[in-house]
Amino acid sequence: MARVNKNDRIGAMIKILTDRPNHIFNLQEFSELFCVSKSTISEDIVSIRNIIDRFSLGKIETVTGAAGGVRYFPKPNWSMVIPIIEKICEILSDPGRILPGGFIYMSDILYTPSKIGILGEVLAHEFIDQRPDFVITVETKGIPIAMVTARALNCPMVIARRDSKATEGSVVTINYISASSRRIQTMSLSRRAVKEGQRGLIVDDFMKGGGTAKGLSELLREFDIDVVGIGVVVSTCEPSKKMVSGYKSIITLKEIDHETGQAIIKPADWLYK
Amino acid sequence: MARVNKNDRIGAMIKILTDRPNHIFNLQEFSELFCVSKSTISEDIVSIRNIIDRFSLGKIETVTGAAGGVRYFPKPNWSMVIPIIEKICEILSDPGRILPGGFIYMSDILYTPSKIGILGEVLAHEFIDQRPDFVITVETKGIPIAMVTARALNCPMVIARRDSKATEGSVVTINYISASSRRIQTMSLSRRAVKEGQRGLIVDDFMKGGGTAKGLSELLREFDIDVVGIGVVVSTCEPSKKMVSGYKSIITLKEIDHETGQAIIKPADWLYK
Repeated sequence: MARVNKNDRIGAMIKILTDRPNHIFNLQEFSELFCVSKSTISEDIVSIRNIIDRFSLGKIETVTGAAGGVRYFPKPNWSMVIPIIEKICEILSDPGRILPGGFIYMSDILYTPSKIGILGEVLAHEFIDQRPDFVITVETKGIPIAMVTARALNCPMVIARRDSKATEGSVVTINYISASSRRIQTMSLSRRAVKEGQRGLIVDDFMKGGGTAKGLSELLREFDIDVVGIGVVVSTCEPSKKMVSGYKSIITLKEIDHETGQAIIKPADWLYK
Repeated sequence: MARVNKNDRIGAMIKILTDRPNHIFNLQEFSELFCVSKSTISEDIVSIRNIIDRFSLGKIETVTGAAGGVRYFPKPNWSMVIPIIEKICEILSDPGRILPGGFIYMSDILYTPSKIGILGEVLAHEFIDQRPDFVITVETKGIPIAMVTARALNCPMVIARRDSKATEGSVVTINYISASSRRIQTMSLSRRAVKEGQRGLIVDDFMKGGGTAKGLSELLREFDIDVVGIGVVVSTCEPSKKMVSGYKSIITLKEIDHETGQAIIKPADWLYK
């Protein structure tokens, strides 16, 4: 391929870098792709960093050393992200969403990639410094948020199952107590899914008493895995004392007024710091 | 903000366009963001199209009319995608992956965003012309591939559940026959998840007899929804006659040799056309 001009190199590199967040690309790869020297690529990266900074599109980092290179990370642009989260809260507050039993219908938000993707980048940004090796959730509703968080962190996701399945191979199963229902529940994780000594990030869609997150922590302990964080989309204010501490929640469900059918749902306070 | 130079505009626009595949961005939005005229933005889009074409990074389309603008679509670069799919087949062929009952352990591939994301773009590319309004799967292992396909199509995903759950509101439940086990199974879909007259794309991780895909088709028929396609990651050669026809599978599982423990797993023939 002939030498590629600067405009074209920058455009193509931005696409390649942002397509795979948190993956380190070697400068040599770009130098070969565009038939220019590595020092030219280094200059291009300065330009790319300026563009990404100027429009608050994320963060470009250069990594030195033998395995060095350049990587992109989707740093949330809070002035755009907070209004989106506020809008999601407004949508979820619709009285028509209250279900029998005091549940709120949230699946449409949780399963729409353009909405949940942004929330995944928020959680990834909160936990990237903890260097998780994988994101874990328990089926079913937490899977999409776990997936988009793992994408932004460039790590695998693993799913604990409610029952053990033939397609998982040998599994470790634990019993745990659901904090809200006080019932004994079961979850299993394939022995092939994770390795001893890894660092796991727990992600889920909803937290009330924290029993599920506690169960996942106990399951990971069976594999000698450090839990480096817990992130959820929505948590309830009550009970204020959860079975786990130190979790991050993006949205807070304050209460449901059963007379008006109105739920008080707000972005978490820490987002405004 | 001061007028933005061409390099910077192109870089930022590529990031914004490729972050949200298949979403139509109005030229006016870009014109305001960069403080330049719409005709300048139109010229930039020509440059962007050339960059995206030259490096086979996808497809840029301009859409005319009142709701017009520009959109990006992740067209697979087959010369890069086919070797990745071949590599996945090689990984899955490892005799160590065969599980009791003749299953193959695939969860690590199915749940790793950097791997499954590419397969989602392949399925999205196959079905974009069918204009699906949503992607549907049944829990659990199909969720990640359904999610990444929906992301590339810029549409919601919906999940049919094995049991009806309080968090789904009122549901429609059907019974269907699993083709391989010949057992009656159940699946439910929230009445809030889809609307009459929509177009649904069925996506799943694995197809043997096709019973699950048939069940999902029947479930959608209850909602007066047209099934516009069926896409799966892996399908088996046997039985050659499935309960559904016209499905697209990315990977074919030919057979498992129980003596050597070797599975014959290949990219589907249509990928090489």
